[in-house]
Amino acid sequence: MRTAFHEELDAIQATLVTMGEMVAVAVVRSTEALLKADIKLAESVIADDEKLDTIQHDLEARAINLMARQQPVAQDLRILVTSLRMSADLERMGDLCHHVAKLARMRYPNVSVPAELIPTIEEMGATAVKIINKSTHVVKTQDLQAAIEIETDDDEMDKLHRALFVALLDDSWSHGIETAIDMTLLGRYYERCADHAVSIARRVYFLVKGEYASESQPAL
Amino acid sequence: MRTAFHEELDAIQATLVTMGEMVAVAVVRSTEALLKADIKLAESVIADDEKLDTIQHDLEARAINLMARQQPVAQDLRILVTSLRMSADLERMGDLCHHVAKLARMRYPNVSVPAELIPTIEEMGATAVKIINKSTHVVKTQDLQAAIEIETDDDEMDKLHRALFVALLDDSWSHGIETAIDMTLLGRYYERCADHAVSIARRVYFLVKGEYASESQPAL
Repeated sequence: MRTAFHEELDAIQATLVTMGEMVAVAVVRSTEALLKADIKLAESVIADDEKLDTIQHDLEARAINLMARQQPVAQDLRILVTSLRMSADLERMGDLCHHVAKLARMRYPNVSVPAELIPTIEEMGATAVKIINKSTHVVKTQDLQAAIEIETDDDEMDKLHRALFVALLDDSWSHGIETAIDMTLLGRYYERCADHAVSIARRVYFLVKGEYASESQPAL
Repeated sequence: MRTAFHEELDAIQATLVTMGEMVAVAVVRSTEALLKADIKLAESVIADDEKLDTIQHDLEARAINLMARQQPVAQDLRILVTSLRMSADLERMGDLCHHVAKLARMRYPNVSVPAELIPTIEEMGATAVKIINKSTHVVKTQDLQAAIEIETDDDEMDKLHRALFVALLDDSWSHGIETAIDMTLLGRYYERCADHAVSIARRVYFLVKGEYASESQPAL
């Protein structure tokens, strides 16, 4: 039988899963807004970010309230503290999608991304979504094998990030400084978004195993 | 008379102050390493970042241990949870100094920053240090007037950040794409570092007053 405490803990975990799903949608939509110069979609991502902030504040209040009322110790306390950190990661990931959408809006009606970089940015978005979905799955199921896989998925993101810089630095780059600045910031938004998802998976791994899977600690 | 609990809470606060002081030193030293292409200084900032990480992990362990043993409620619990968040901010600020130092090392023996941008970057470093020192003072003294001033100091940082972009986008820019990318990332490191310090001051304000000073919530 689950105690009332564990039901509340499950509810907090369910909220983290919801936040993860919302962030994945935000990455998909902000990337589409960016690559299609879809201003309405960009505006909706910007508006949705506030919903994520509200959910995070509510989650934090519930977690602190649960600590105060139930005075958990040991693993239960660690789960609650880790939930607070994961919700901060997810909130920040939402901010980064917001930044992507703002770039789409700033360059509208033009497409921010030069045609030859669209496949790279598209793949960065898809890789971020893959990592976020997997980290959400890890939060939901404590699947440690998936948590380990995320490290490899993140290597893909690093590879795409390097490919982006190679394109910017190629002699054939003809899009000027402003677009190079946009692409530099964009690359960083996707990479940081993936970093936070990697942190979430590492935190779950640490909670279950009491140690990190690799030499690396959460990237936050 | 202070209870044992409050002595431990004071010790955690003192550690946050130490971390703030270490981060301010890291900004000064990484900026000097960058502007003078001082590889030894850059290496020492990179090495010192590990010390900050170790202090943060130790602080977290102490905070969680204190929660488990003393089962604080209400304000004491909120202070502990907020301390965990502030230590995460400080740890991330250390990472950003690490990034600045790595840029200095990557471009060594050249100076990463073109001569005409040295004053702007110098001022970004000085403004970051000013904001960090003030946020450390706020943590130490709960001086809410200083917490409010930090918002204005942060406007200075935003102004410098915009000035940096104006220089990069000026027709006279002659340093190519690679340096423009470096300056874009550098500007973001300083700005994010200041953002985290602003968050710390806002968190203290919220702890004391139960509400935020402005419409804005912590930037983390």
